[in-house]
Amino acid sequence: MKNMSMQKIAIFPGSFDPFTVGHQDIVLRALSLFDKVIIAIGSNSDKKGFFEIDKRKQWIENTFIDEPKVEVDVYSGLTIEYCKNKNAKYLLRGLRTSSDFEYERAIAQMNKKMDASVESVFLLTSPELTAVSSTIVRDIIRHGGDAKDFLPEAIYNQIL
Amino acid sequence: MKNMSMQKIAIFPGSFDPFTVGHQDIVLRALSLFDKVIIAIGSNSDKKGFFEIDKRKQWIENTFIDEPKVEVDVYSGLTIEYCKNKNAKYLLRGLRTSSDFEYERAIAQMNKKMDASVESVFLLTSPELTAVSSTIVRDIIRHGGDAKDFLPEAIYNQIL
Amino acid sequence: MKNMSMQKIAIFPGSFDPFTVGHQDIVLRALSLFDKVIIAIGSNSDKKGFFEIDKRKQWIENTFIDEPKVEVDVYSGLTIEYCKNKNAKYLLRGLRTSSDFEYERAIAQMNKKMDASVESVFLLTSPELTAVSSTIVRDIIRHGGDAKDFLPEAIYNQIL
Amino acid sequence: MKNMSMQKIAIFPGSFDPFTVGHQDIVLRALSLFDKVIIAIGSNSDKKGFFEIDKRKQWIENTFIDEPKVEVDVYSGLTIEYCKNKNAKYLLRGLRTSSDFEYERAIAQMNKKMDASVESVFLLTSPELTAVSSTIVRDIIRHGGDAKDFLPEAIYNQIL
Amino acid sequence: MKNMSMQKIAIFPGSFDPFTVGHQDIVLRALSLFDKVIIAIGSNSDKKGFFEIDKRKQWIENTFIDEPKVEVDVYSGLTIEYCKNKNAKYLLRGLRTSSDFEYERAIAQMNKKMDASVESVFLLTSPELTAVSSTIVRDIIRHGGDAKDFLPEAIYNQIL
Amino acid sequence: MKNMSMQKIAIFPGSFDPFTVGHQDIVLRALSLFDKVIIAIGSNSDKKGFFEIDKRKQWIENTFIDEPKVEVDVYSGLTIEYCKNKNAKYLLRGLRTSSDFEYERAIAQMNKKMDASVESVFLLTSPELTAVSSTIVRDIIRHGGDAKDFLPEAIYNQIL
Repeated sequence: MKNMSMQKIAIFPGSFDPFTVGHQDIVLRALSLFDKVIIAIGSNSDKKGFFEIDKRKQWIENTFIDEPKVEVDVYSGLTIEYCKNKNAKYLLRGLRTSSDFEYERAIAQMNKKMDASVESVFLLTSPELTAVSSTIVRDIIRHGGDAKDFLPEAIYNQIL
Repeated sequence: MKNMSMQKIAIFPGSFDPFTVGHQDIVLRALSLFDKVIIAIGSNSDKKGFFEIDKRKQWIENTFIDEPKVEVDVYSGLTIEYCKNKNAKYLLRGLRTSSDFEYERAIAQMNKKMDASVESVFLLTSPELTAVSSTIVRDIIRHGGDAKDFLPEAIYNQIL
Repeated sequence: MKNMSMQKIAIFPGSFDPFTVGHQDIVLRALSLFDKVIIAIGSNSDKKGFFEIDKRKQWIENTFIDEPKVEVDVYSGLTIEYCKNKNAKYLLRGLRTSSDFEYERAIAQMNKKMDASVESVFLLTSPELTAVSSTIVRDIIRHGGDAKDFLPEAIYNQIL
Repeated sequence: MKNMSMQKIAIFPGSFDPFTVGHQDIVLRALSLFDKVIIAIGSNSDKKGFFEIDKRKQWIENTFIDEPKVEVDVYSGLTIEYCKNKNAKYLLRGLRTSSDFEYERAIAQMNKKMDASVESVFLLTSPELTAVSSTIVRDIIRHGGDAKDFLPEAIYNQIL
Repeated sequence: MKNMSMQKIAIFPGSFDPFTVGHQDIVLRALSLFDKVIIAIGSNSDKKGFFEIDKRKQWIENTFIDEPKVEVDVYSGLTIEYCKNKNAKYLLRGLRTSSDFEYERAIAQMNKKMDASVESVFLLTSPELTAVSSTIVRDIIRHGGDAKDFLPEAIYNQIL
Repeated sequence: MKNMSMQKIAIFPGSFDPFTVGHQDIVLRALSLFDKVIIAIGSNSDKKGFFEIDKRKQWIENTFIDEPKVEVDVYSGLTIEYCKNKNAKYLLRGLRTSSDFEYERAIAQMNKKMDASVESVFLLTSPELTAVSSTIVRDIIRHGGDAKDFLPEAIYNQIL
């Protein structure tokens, strides 16, 4: 059995408002690389989200109910501090477009400077999911459109 | 005479707050390609614009008063639904920069997934108009600058 | 019947070395917009391609054997001159990535300056085909890989 | 002695909320190029910043207390008008990423159109400072993180 | 002891002509994530490199002489086939700029389509090494400049 | 009179094959910023250009025959070494697109690392000249097209 402190733990941070098939794709593809992936919903006291944090958390838990390596959590404060608390040495991020990339690079480099022991690891979103973003999905739901193709089944069924 | 259902109708959606010479350029260049171009002002109940929607609509109508192929309309809800209602098979978009492009691609691909029969068609903004955006024009007007070069004549005269 | 001079003719220029499913996708989606789409293979005396021009032409013809609106041709010289000769008022281009976009914009703006009457029209490559490029496909074939997913059926069968 | 009207004066505009080591780097590197660099804090009546404008101004003044060529000022209204008032023929801007570039280009071209006599001059942020942005620094401070590496010493000491 | 077939093996492919401090940085940071990293020099019969392949290989071996998890190899043919032969489930890539990203994404998506079991994993080059590329380093060496800052020590000493 | 060693000398390096209206625009706009601008044609023994270096030099000299602050020169070797020889503390570069930017940033950062005393200064190409590149101009000339709009008058008249 592996020693706990040797475990490869990755944090997958985001607002997940809501968690999409794009996010799901990244988590599933990262599972072979890590011993544990913690999906960490950032809670920002200033900015209320579209869906309540408790619901977001429950929906993601339902989506990964059969994946023992996935944990879902809510955090506030700096992501890099949260990594330390969780003994996580990896930050998992999905890359979709080159604008994404520029933004992610800035965040990753600042994090690296604050704690050089945490490494950002990037996977690519599958091509057919590249366009899916929480912002556009919220827009579809707000206007009564059908977001079936863009949400994990467990989430789509509960959002209604 | 062409059958109505065979007409090539394009929707040119936007907030047009205000409609600029860049928008005008795209519409004029698209006219030969379509039988009708509907300039569709998206109305968002949450977000009040800088100029009132009624004014924006009237200004655009004045700009194209001599163009029988141009219609101006206000809509709310999903753009893709609006296309269906109008029997429009094309979404017309102007491309200025590569950031524009990334954003437009995401929107176009989501639309395509929701209704594969609607095709997004892109024209390039003329080089000398590339920098003109509604955001910057609003900023100029707000600070009392002269936006003459950036607005269609019919709009510039009425904004004062 | 439409007057010949009123026909909407689009040129789809490229080296098509080889023509991929990405190119096919753009042509098929452009068909409703134009009366004729001429796939024009640019012949460059300086640079010999990977596949012979005659083969490239024949393969594309086979691909669109049932599409009366599609023509395949070989040309040399400036694309904009070729448009004039063919009485084509539109240049059709597919956009895949934002690097594509920057390059295409430069070409389109230079063309526009040389002949303002020719308009460049852009369609988006389908998400799942975004990564397919002739360069990568050539690389796969050169190394004996299987390019089945990246070539139109009529071409894949003949390349072997 | 140089005639006043011949002086090369550059405006370095921004919200500087707060002024970072990235901004400091640009100003220091620009000093040899100009006779005077005015760091101009844009005051926007609509949008309250994170730090008070007076504090921002005082912090920057402390940072450049030994640089006679640097002035710090607060302005409202259009940047291009402010340049005229200050008899400044140059707008100094730092470039970090290609997204920065697209945005800066739009602003610079609009400014150029409104006053062709003002030239935008760009310097590159040093590689190790590329990721530093006021937005991320505010985020660190808000969450109680240590922003020491990202702020000029004179500012870091006073923010606490 | 881990079962061989369970080992996490990553291929780090490239021409490494020459291997730079940027490449070294990526390999070192990837070591904790994988059980083995194979630095695989692509040999292209058509295109002779600047440095001989044997030298490139030996230099990289010297650089990682104390790292038992690093292997250096030369391969020809498709990278994805090479992964299969080596039983490697991961392709390791460094990301420097957003142009890099677009190119890497195309390659990764084509690879994924040819063998869905191989996952591309991206790490970011450290900010101060972002500008270092083999092309520019070759240019410096060709013109007799000093490339000390851009090459691993073991390579710099031997190139002379 | 200014001391020679205090002079602000900028090098504007390139292959200028040929020098376009875009290059001319950058030089003219840089003149007020520097005491001397040296247009430096890089001579690469490996790669023969389209036009002979002597002609390129003479054409540029003719273009700036009335500008005493402009010098034209040919150099080989590293640009940064050439700057030292000329006692130039500035490298002048034009920025057209965001791809330009990424490339220019890499070059500038490598130069900075090799000689921190040389500063890269960027000006923006005018919007209507953004698309003009030597590559496209060569292509037009090679195919017998009319490049009048893209070349300085003194060059256009002599190329024929």
